[in-house]
Amino acid sequence: MLQFKCVFCDRKHPADPMEQFCSDCGEPMLVDLPSARRSIRHGDTALARYLEFLPIPEVDRALHLGEGGTPLLPLNRLTERFRLPPVLVKNEMLNPTSSFKDRGTVVSVHIAKSRSLNRIGTVSTGNMAASTAAYGARAGIETFVLVKEDTTEEKLLSTAVHGARLIKVTGDYGKLGRVSFGLGKKHGIYFMNSVDPFRVEGYKATAFEIFEETQPRNPGCIVVPVSSGGHLIGLMKAFVELKEQGLCSELPTFIGVQAEGCAPIARAFSEGSPCCRNWEAPASVAQSIVNPAPPGGNIVLKMIRELRGEILAVTDEEILSAQRLLAEVEGLFCLPASAATMAGLLKLEARGRLPSEKAAVLVLTGSGLKNIRALPAQPSRVFTSTLPDLDRLIASLAG
Amino acid sequence: MLQFKCVFCDRKHPADPMEQFCSDCGEPMLVDLPSARRSIRHGDTALARYLEFLPIPEVDRALHLGEGGTPLLPLNRLTERFRLPPVLVKNEMLNPTSSFKDRGTVVSVHIAKSRSLNRIGTVSTGNMAASTAAYGARAGIETFVLVKEDTTEEKLLSTAVHGARLIKVTGDYGKLGRVSFGLGKKHGIYFMNSVDPFRVEGYKATAFEIFEETQPRNPGCIVVPVSSGGHLIGLMKAFVELKEQGLCSELPTFIGVQAEGCAPIARAFSEGSPCCRNWEAPASVAQSIVNPAPPGGNIVLKMIRELRGEILAVTDEEILSAQRLLAEVEGLFCLPASAATMAGLLKLEARGRLPSEKAAVLVLTGSGLKNIRALPAQPSRVFTSTLPDLDRLIASLAG
Repeated sequence: MLQFKCVFCDRKHPADPMEQFCSDCGEPMLVDLPSARRSIRHGDTALARYLEFLPIPEVDRALHLGEGGTPLLPLNRLTERFRLPPVLVKNEMLNPTSSFKDRGTVVSVHIAKSRSLNRIGTVSTGNMAASTAAYGARAGIETFVLVKEDTTEEKLLSTAVHGARLIKVTGDYGKLGRVSFGLGKKHGIYFMNSVDPFRVEGYKATAFEIFEETQPRNPGCIVVPVSSGGHLIGLMKAFVELKEQGLCSELPTFIGVQAEGCAPIARAFSEGSPCCRNWEAPASVAQSIVNPAPPGGNIVLKMIRELRGEILAVTDEEILSAQRLLAEVEGLFCLPASAATMAGLLKLEARGRLPSEKAAVLVLTGSGLKNIRALPAQPSRVFTSTLPDLDRLIASLAG
Repeated sequence: MLQFKCVFCDRKHPADPMEQFCSDCGEPMLVDLPSARRSIRHGDTALARYLEFLPIPEVDRALHLGEGGTPLLPLNRLTERFRLPPVLVKNEMLNPTSSFKDRGTVVSVHIAKSRSLNRIGTVSTGNMAASTAAYGARAGIETFVLVKEDTTEEKLLSTAVHGARLIKVTGDYGKLGRVSFGLGKKHGIYFMNSVDPFRVEGYKATAFEIFEETQPRNPGCIVVPVSSGGHLIGLMKAFVELKEQGLCSELPTFIGVQAEGCAPIARAFSEGSPCCRNWEAPASVAQSIVNPAPPGGNIVLKMIRELRGEILAVTDEEILSAQRLLAEVEGLFCLPASAATMAGLLKLEARGRLPSEKAAVLVLTGSGLKNIRALPAQPSRVFTSTLPDLDRLIASLAG
């Protein structure tokens, strides 16, 4: 029988999507795959290829929306400009709802379908809301999405369009995560929140793809934005499992990046503390990584130390500058949260901490289209002309 | 030497990106591939696989942003609900700038690079602007984008973010297309507009992928939204070339869909006319297919009749209803223009004109995130609750 395991007290519990926290220490649990020989299969989708590493017995093609198989792209021009070692981006913006969340949602929805749970839900202010609503629609499962009172109209609309029941919750949003699980049990709703153990399993597929695409040599480091911690936990867990299976020997260095305006995990990391404290008065342009009480924070701290990685923080100025660089020099328009990876890389390089030959992989987690309002702060080049004046304007602009 | 050919007077001209119109009849020309044995290669990108059918000698990997290789997804639930033959969607929303335009832009930018044209441009109100700006940035080529005066802030921002020189042109936007080519010649700017012959070649890759993914049997029909005509021309040209090469015998039926509020090609088609007249007072919710003077209209009419296809028009109401169906029942949030394909399919079915066994393929051309403002017209389900009241609200909503 499939089990969850607490990474702190090593207790195992049956893998019940409605009971995701350790009854002893209260921390979120992870899926504990039974020990077995596993390998990467042939297959045309991420789920099919990595099925032996996932907690689902088979792939339900009807749930597939095209998630995974995202491109790994070299940043030749930025690498040259900043004299960096090779830098690649894993472009998770090319998932069905334009963010990495789809990788996790599809696995959790497989669990819901296979266990005949006919209500799902999530607590989110952005990417996860749209992702859960889309897969819920695809599966024909009633979907509840709980959002913050001040969620932008764009985010509400792109979630509501999928027919989800969307509830703006007023009051203490910080409590909502825990409250949702209680309500879920009462009303039979499987809340697949940010560190849902099955969701975290789905993120492993990204790491497996990076592994496959960079063979015969792992990248030197993998840089990823950190909010709840679920994404980074999934990426690390995947490489640990590859190593257990003897498929790779040396692991890449994992670098988690937070925004300085809300960096509870980076703070605990630099203080040497095993526990995150809640962040007071969070504020950053990188909205999707503003999480003052990250539920996976303590797990991240434990794993990243074991794997000798690092959690660092970057300023909003560094983030916006990196976002502009990626868009202007490489044609990649990502969310500020995603651009934090590039900002983090440049910070490591400035500190002389970037290994010089092996490739760095930045995980770009979500499309810039999802928060177009974050842009006006950036300089743009918009001119106005009449048709007859166009000739003169173009002549003056042509560089 | 590579040539352009006029499909009306059969004249051939050297394939010069700065001279895209037939000097005799003024119509846009298409690429005339020299006759040769061609085949689909092995390769991990669309350009690499279909290189022998494309007017570029080799693939420049540095330009790749992850375009192509989009998923072909069955619409099981909608098929069942409406008792349709199998329906598949080709999900072009999963291109780098979230629309099919990237397929064409990458080929045109290859041409610019290989011919050392160091300025490119486009005239667009939406998807093509962002696509050209992104690939221009990736290639390090100075990019000019001419837009309509009333272009929305979102569209301006997601183009300007790539560093393009963005010019809002006041006055008669209808004339701008032709004017741009004159300015292009004067200032050395290669304008890769909607029926640029090289851009059209890029769209062929979508058809080749559909062909490969549906073997051993072609789909019964391919349904695509029609604006300038460039996209549909590319899809048809690809299948004609596959047939010429003996790779497929029977072609799918091509169905082009326009919005009733701006349907110059559908009108000419139903009137039996060989020429489009300009549409007066265009108006539709499907903004990206509102083109009152489609430059490829006459070519579309000629080719679609030769291939026994059809151009039809659907109402805004049908479009919005189809958009909601795709989002709510299948988890696919597309532009209204893309949803016009589903509306067209339902119209054909109602008329008893849909072949009963072979699959229909809908090409979903762009992401709903690109025109989120088109949504408020749709009913949504947004509720508000305090934390203590949440229990009662969920109980009342749970179906």
